[in-house]
Amino acid sequence: MTFTGRHLISINDFSNEEIEAVLDLAQEMDSALEAKKRLDLCQGKELYTIFYEPSTRTRSSFETAMHRLGGTVVSHAEAQVTSSVAKGETIADTVRTLEKYADVIVMRHPLDGSTRLAAEHSSVPIISGGDGAHEHPTQTLLDLYTILKEKGGIEGKNVALCGDLRHGRTVHSLAVALARFKAEITCIAPPGFELPDHIRDILNNYKCKITEYSSLEEIADDGSLLVHQPKTGKTHQEGFMSFLLESLDVLYFTRLQRERFDTQESSVAGEESYRINKQLLAKSRDDAVIMHPLPRINELAYEVDQDKRAAYFRQAGYGIPVRMALIALLLGVAEPKKALTTHEATVKIAKDTSNLRCINERCITNKEQYSTPKFYKVPGSPKLLRCYYCDWLAQN
Amino acid sequence: MTFTGRHLISINDFSNEEIEAVLDLAQEMDSALEAKKRLDLCQGKELYTIFYEPSTRTRSSFETAMHRLGGTVVSHAEAQVTSSVAKGETIADTVRTLEKYADVIVMRHPLDGSTRLAAEHSSVPIISGGDGAHEHPTQTLLDLYTILKEKGGIEGKNVALCGDLRHGRTVHSLAVALARFKAEITCIAPPGFELPDHIRDILNNYKCKITEYSSLEEIADDGSLLVHQPKTGKTHQEGFMSFLLESLDVLYFTRLQRERFDTQESSVAGEESYRINKQLLAKSRDDAVIMHPLPRINELAYEVDQDKRAAYFRQAGYGIPVRMALIALLLGVAEPKKALTTHEATVKIAKDTSNLRCINERCITNKEQYSTPKFYKVPGSPKLLRCYYCDWLAQN
Amino acid sequence: MTFTGRHLISINDFSNEEIEAVLDLAQEMDSALEAKKRLDLCQGKELYTIFYEPSTRTRSSFETAMHRLGGTVVSHAEAQVTSSVAKGETIADTVRTLEKYADVIVMRHPLDGSTRLAAEHSSVPIISGGDGAHEHPTQTLLDLYTILKEKGGIEGKNVALCGDLRHGRTVHSLAVALARFKAEITCIAPPGFELPDHIRDILNNYKCKITEYSSLEEIADDGSLLVHQPKTGKTHQEGFMSFLLESLDVLYFTRLQRERFDTQESSVAGEESYRINKQLLAKSRDDAVIMHPLPRINELAYEVDQDKRAAYFRQAGYGIPVRMALIALLLGVAEPKKALTTHEATVKIAKDTSNLRCINERCITNKEQYSTPKFYKVPGSPKLLRCYYCDWLAQN
Repeated sequence: MTFTGRHLISINDFSNEEIEAVLDLAQEMDSALEAKKRLDLCQGKELYTIFYEPSTRTRSSFETAMHRLGGTVVSHAEAQVTSSVAKGETIADTVRTLEKYADVIVMRHPLDGSTRLAAEHSSVPIISGGDGAHEHPTQTLLDLYTILKEKGGIEGKNVALCGDLRHGRTVHSLAVALARFKAEITCIAPPGFELPDHIRDILNNYKCKITEYSSLEEIADDGSLLVHQPKTGKTHQEGFMSFLLESLDVLYFTRLQRERFDTQESSVAGEESYRINKQLLAKSRDDAVIMHPLPRINELAYEVDQDKRAAYFRQAGYGIPVRMALIALLLGVAEPKKALTTHEATVKIAKDTSNLRCINERCITNKEQYSTPKFYKVPGSPKLLRCYYCDWLAQN
Repeated sequence: MTFTGRHLISINDFSNEEIEAVLDLAQEMDSALEAKKRLDLCQGKELYTIFYEPSTRTRSSFETAMHRLGGTVVSHAEAQVTSSVAKGETIADTVRTLEKYADVIVMRHPLDGSTRLAAEHSSVPIISGGDGAHEHPTQTLLDLYTILKEKGGIEGKNVALCGDLRHGRTVHSLAVALARFKAEITCIAPPGFELPDHIRDILNNYKCKITEYSSLEEIADDGSLLVHQPKTGKTHQEGFMSFLLESLDVLYFTRLQRERFDTQESSVAGEESYRINKQLLAKSRDDAVIMHPLPRINELAYEVDQDKRAAYFRQAGYGIPVRMALIALLLGVAEPKKALTTHEATVKIAKDTSNLRCINERCITNKEQYSTPKFYKVPGSPKLLRCYYCDWLAQN
Repeated sequence: MTFTGRHLISINDFSNEEIEAVLDLAQEMDSALEAKKRLDLCQGKELYTIFYEPSTRTRSSFETAMHRLGGTVVSHAEAQVTSSVAKGETIADTVRTLEKYADVIVMRHPLDGSTRLAAEHSSVPIISGGDGAHEHPTQTLLDLYTILKEKGGIEGKNVALCGDLRHGRTVHSLAVALARFKAEITCIAPPGFELPDHIRDILNNYKCKITEYSSLEEIADDGSLLVHQPKTGKTHQEGFMSFLLESLDVLYFTRLQRERFDTQESSVAGEESYRINKQLLAKSRDDAVIMHPLPRINELAYEVDQDKRAAYFRQAGYGIPVRMALIALLLGVAEPKKALTTHEATVKIAKDTSNLRCINERCITNKEQYSTPKFYKVPGSPKLLRCYYCDWLAQN
């Protein structure tokens, strides 16, 4: 199996072996960048960035990655207002046009499954830069790369995922990837922000060791008392966090994805208990790594930034070599260092589902009329079906 | 006459011979692209795109065209908010500044005649990317190129223009060009959306054979019954369309340009009769070509896309070689394959018109105070005057 | 002292000798551009433009300057909506991310002192493209370059600054630079739009000969009667302007910065008296130079544009060689022609100011919570403190 001409929509589009091939090449790109070696692998190649949502890191780092490879870029930073979408154009039509101009397309879109739909209509590689609350696979690649660089490996590491685990597409893709690479996962989320069922199910399928603190009380029972109970006055945030820090290799924070849920409230119950500061850091392991996909809001105190364990800006920087490697592989201008064995398709589309529609209102199949809902059988539970675009469980 | 340093604001700025020179060179560019030959004709040259209206295809394909030629691009995708226009700057001042930076400028603007005004203030070539409801000359070049590629020639071909022929700048430029290259034209438009008089007059001057269905009743009388008569219940859309399809080489659809007319209504009477679907396609000629400048709304059913006669995405793709050829010629880095004979200016500015103003409220001369209305004598009707900027007939 | 790796936030970050080094190199760049010599000093280097406010000239000319040097650009033309700032990200975090991608960053931001704060968090050079009403140092460099090119020198020249001297950051930076290079300054501003005290103080420190018309009456007393007195009917605008023109080498106009002050009024008292037209130009010196940072509104009549003394579009054009020189020096890919002597830091941060906050509500230190107010002692008046970020005088 080669990378040439393929899409990257979900981290599951790549086998473990393929992910390792990307990370291996990223390491080479990293060395070339450090040596200030000029690369021209992508000379004459055109990258398009089509972003329907704001972005600092993803769009920028893809564009710089392409420049560092000697290629050129056409940018749609605000496609929802500057492109023909403003005149009512569909994703399919946009993609079938732009594939005539571009050699590779990076797309971010607010609806779940939108980038998968785009890929179905494109003859050039589509790389997802995030589709709604669904996935953000290149963030996952650079997250894995960060753990590799900072911790030397992934297997057996205890990685805590902290914050909004429900709406954070970043965290969904990462959790699955960690499970596939045999890491242990500790989930810490305010009530209502836990990992969605379909992700938890996938983790279970991989037999991932996962500790979930699905409610604050549960953690309290665990022995390490907890957080922000205004009525009783018992606030044990500190003890809880230090307890965690002692057992964790990686602490991965995410912000509440306010733009993805319907609340006018300025604060979320328990939100302030998922923050890390200097005091807590003092009690954590010396070799711990603090990660965050950024932007942060309040999850990481600024005083943490100076600590050598604060890896989040380094993490952002790793986006360049990882995206360089990915672009080069999909364009076929670089080859994996080791020959790849065949990659088995992970999903099988179910037949006779023409009467089904996806129950996720934010799934692209419920918005773009020409699209056809498709479902796949859940491995291990063949009676269950999931949406091919957004991975939500079908009701049948 | 050479191309170097000239503007392209109207398709009439080029003689037939010059248009052919562009299309000839486009064919060479096309071959070079297919052979993946790297071109560096524009190395060291800077293209500016200044767009005051949304665009997917035009801006993107110009930028990619420049990259494919080895040049660089500075992009103003939303000039109305990101440039000094937001502080009240005029077109003249914007252009007199940017000509200091750019080697060639592509501009799209919502007002008729705006790009002509821009060209008057620029010492570097201005290429219009569309000025209001007036013209869109590079779309016309690629439309002609599409007919050439798909049909082998233009002369004598019967081309149907379907949809909003009043507000569609694309269709105005194309109709004139088709007349100049001796095609036959069939116009099909909902009531109120017919070709404007000034365009019809021009076509007549070229002795173009034009069949106009200016009202639905008229078509019905013609023998082929028609569409959307809710009261009598007689809906003969299908028959009408298949009648047309049998006689047509090219079927050129356009969407209703809702942003250019004042209606809050969600549908326009008869709108749904100007759509093509698989059923109608089945009755059309085997060698017919379906074109559309895109974006489409409902004019083309998605099921048509799979048909080999559906040429609209190929058409979008032709934008690259055509725009490469144009840029290279205007910058003087490529020469026409055949020497050009002298090109006669097509318009003569009338004197003593200082008391005249253009009656088109959306003409740039009614918006930018420093501009001076100018008029030209209509060839064949020397008593009639047209606005030099927007081509509307003057009242005098 | 070398330029490599330094920031340019205020024109005071550079010594006179350093400014001259930039202008010298700009002259070389200018010659190379005229000779159409291709430069590749910045090959493989990436410039980022991060603009939180509209811009035509500054962003464009930086991007073209980088292209002319052989480098590449990633553009954030509307960072307030297209970047993670829309999700609440701080300047510090944005910069600490982008420094991982960029080799040099140009930033424009609406708050005073914002670019200084950015520079504190960046390991790559930050060039200010304007921070609120505070400074716009590269405009100053190109203004100085314009005077040099058009008048042959700066020392002893009488430069009039006309218009909104309170809110115009352009004028603040220029006034200080003119004082440092021993020009004479004549200020002409409508009531309420005079030069702010802190700038006037700085000019005084440099012993700059400055004639300030801080109120219209004052000018009237001066002998040359004046403008816009609706009650008495005495309007002597013309005489005043011609009086000035006879004594002035350079007439530098600026527009009212309506976006920076709170008024709903459509006109400002006396505004119309600060305009120049053909009639006034006729009375001015033959070798006078009319400058304007652009965009203009009504300050310069269009009829002035044709006059050879109208230098404002040439001035805009000088932005390219000046910014090329600056980029090349800060990136360390070009060296000053003469070795530089040591540059003394012009400000010393005061200690024990932890209880002070800046009184400028639009100072970045009052908006970004992690920032720490800092103050420096005013040279000559060591009891006075100014804000390190916005230069406002501290109350203590």
